[in-house]
Amino acid sequence: MYRPEIKILDCTIRDGGLINNHNFDDALVRATYKALSDAGVDYMEIGYKNSRKMFSSKDFGKWKFCDDDDIRKITDGIASNMKISVMADVGRVDMDDIKPASESPVDMIRVASYAKNVDKAIAMVNEFSQKGYETTINIMAVSCTLDSEMTEALHQLEEECKAEVIYVVDSYGALYQENTELLVKKFKRILKSKEVGIHAHNNQQLGFSNTIESIIHGANYLDATVYGIGRAAGNCPLELLIGFLKNPKFDIRPILDIISTQFIPLRDKIEWGYIIPYAITGMLDEHPRTAMAMRKTDKKENYRAFYDSFSSQEVE
Amino acid sequence: MYRPEIKILDCTIRDGGLINNHNFDDALVRATYKALSDAGVDYMEIGYKNSRKMFSSKDFGKWKFCDDDDIRKITDGIASNMKISVMADVGRVDMDDIKPASESPVDMIRVASYAKNVDKAIAMVNEFSQKGYETTINIMAVSCTLDSEMTEALHQLEEECKAEVIYVVDSYGALYQENTELLVKKFKRILKSKEVGIHAHNNQQLGFSNTIESIIHGANYLDATVYGIGRAAGNCPLELLIGFLKNPKFDIRPILDIISTQFIPLRDKIEWGYIIPYAITGMLDEHPRTAMAMRKTDKKENYRAFYDSFSSQEVE
Repeated sequence: MYRPEIKILDCTIRDGGLINNHNFDDALVRATYKALSDAGVDYMEIGYKNSRKMFSSKDFGKWKFCDDDDIRKITDGIASNMKISVMADVGRVDMDDIKPASESPVDMIRVASYAKNVDKAIAMVNEFSQKGYETTINIMAVSCTLDSEMTEALHQLEEECKAEVIYVVDSYGALYQENTELLVKKFKRILKSKEVGIHAHNNQQLGFSNTIESIIHGANYLDATVYGIGRAAGNCPLELLIGFLKNPKFDIRPILDIISTQFIPLRDKIEWGYIIPYAITGMLDEHPRTAMAMRKTDKKENYRAFYDSFSSQEVE
Repeated sequence: MYRPEIKILDCTIRDGGLINNHNFDDALVRATYKALSDAGVDYMEIGYKNSRKMFSSKDFGKWKFCDDDDIRKITDGIASNMKISVMADVGRVDMDDIKPASESPVDMIRVASYAKNVDKAIAMVNEFSQKGYETTINIMAVSCTLDSEMTEALHQLEEECKAEVIYVVDSYGALYQENTELLVKKFKRILKSKEVGIHAHNNQQLGFSNTIESIIHGANYLDATVYGIGRAAGNCPLELLIGFLKNPKFDIRPILDIISTQFIPLRDKIEWGYIIPYAITGMLDEHPRTAMAMRKTDKKENYRAFYDSFSSQEVE
C-alpha cells in the first residue's frame, strides 16, 4: 500500500550542474524534463538562483542563474504536471530578482543552509513564501552538526519559518541507516507542522538505502537524480527509488530511456558515482572537496596516500 | 563498541570467478591473499570444489576445482592467520576428492543450496564436518522462497545439520532492509545453536546496507568482495564493510592498495557493478541470467525493451 503524501524531487540538473559548472545542453535538459514528467515525478529542480552580480556567465552555464525565460524554453510545448524548483544559497541571491510566483515558471524555492545559519535561511524563505512560492529549508552536513545546535535550529524552524518542508541533507554521504533513523525521528518530533525530506549522497552506496530508511520513519519528500548523477559520488538513483515506490502513478520506463540515450554517454564525459576517494571521505565524515581535487591529478588512484592524509593531520 | 564474534569472509576470487570462468592469474590471487591477510579478514573463499569428472579444465580455470596443491602455491611464503574456504554445490562434488581437513590447506567448506534441496546439502555438510572441516550452508534465492518452505528447512538445519553457520543469500539482489530484517530475525529465532551469515548481492546498491541491517539483527558472518566484484552486479564491497566495522584488527589500507593496483585495471577487462539491467532484475526479483545474456549483445543499453520483456510474459 503506497503513501500518497510521498513526493519525489528530481535534482538531476541542479546537483549534476555542480560537476559541469551548470553547462547542460538544452536538448538534454528538455529530454530530462519530458522523461521526468512522463515518469510521474513531482518536482524537477533545474538549478540555482544565483545573483549575476556575484557570478559571471562566462564561468557558469545558465542553470547557475535559472532565468525565468531560460526555464520556459525548456518547458514550453511539453505536457506536464510536474512543478519546477530552484535552489537558493544563503547570501548568494539578489532578492530583487525574485518575481512574484504568479509571474514565474518556478513553483518552489529551496534554501540550503547549515544549522548554524538558520536565521538567515528563515529570513530568505519567509520572503519567498510571501511572494507565493512553496519553500523548503535543506539542513546541510547533518553528519557533523552538534545535536544541541540541531535541536535549537529545528525548534526555531518550527516556530518562525514558513517553509512547508525541512530536509535532512547528508552532504558527506556519511550516514548509516541507524543515524538516518535517529535524525529523521528527531526532525519529525520537533517539526510537528512540517513535512520532512531526505537528500542522501551516495559515497558509501547508501544513498538509496538511507532514502528508504527515511521513508520508513516518516519522510515524505525524497530527492533523487537520474542514474545517481551529482557532485562527487552523486545521489540516490531515481530509477531505484521509482522501482521501490508503489504509487501506480510512477513509471520507470521514461527514466530507463534517458539513462540509455543521455546519461550513459554523459558518464563517459564527466565523472560521478562509486569512486574510492569519495567512499573514503564518506566513511571519514569529511567534505568531498579534497577527493574531487585529487581526482583531477595523476595520483587519482593513489587511495592509500589519500586515506593516510586524513590521519596524519594534527587535530588536538 | 565492536562485536568480537563478527567474521568477514571475502569471496572475491570465488564469486568473481563466475564472471571470468575462474581464470585469475596466480599473481592477482596471491596479491589478494596477502592483502586480505594484512587487512585482518577472517576467511578467504578461493573457489569451487567441483568434480573434474563433470567439468573440463579446458573450459574453466583452476579455481573451479581448488586442488590443494594449487591453493598451497598461493599461500606458501605469506604470513597469515586467515583461513581458507571453498564452496561446494549440491551434486557437483566428487566426495572421494575431499581429504581429511588435517591433510588439506582448506579450513572451511560452504555448501550452497536452495531451501528445497536442504536434505542433500545436510548430507554433504555432515560428511565434510566428519572430515574435520568447518562448514556452512548458504540458502540461496531467499527472496523467492516460500515462508513455509523456509521454516521447514531451518528447523531441519537446526536439528540435523552439523554446519556452524547458516547464511541468508540474496541471490537476486532483491531484498530491501525490511525484508532483510525479517529474514535474519527468523533465521536467528529458529537456528538457536548456530551463527547466521549474510551474502548480499548489489543489484540495487543495497549489498552494503543489507549487510549492516543483518549485523544490527545479529548476523555475525559477513560476505564481501574487493571493490564489490562478483557475478552481475557483484557483492557487498569489502572496503565499505571494513570502513564501517569498529574492530581494531581490521585495516582498510591493504584493500585500498589492491583496488588501485589490481581491481581498477581488471574492471576495464571484465564487467560487474551497478548496471541498469542488473538493477532491473533485482527490483523485479528475477535471476540475473537474462541480464547477463543481454549485456553480451549489441542491445546491451536497451533497458526499456529489457524491462518490458518481463511484464509481457504470460504468468497465469
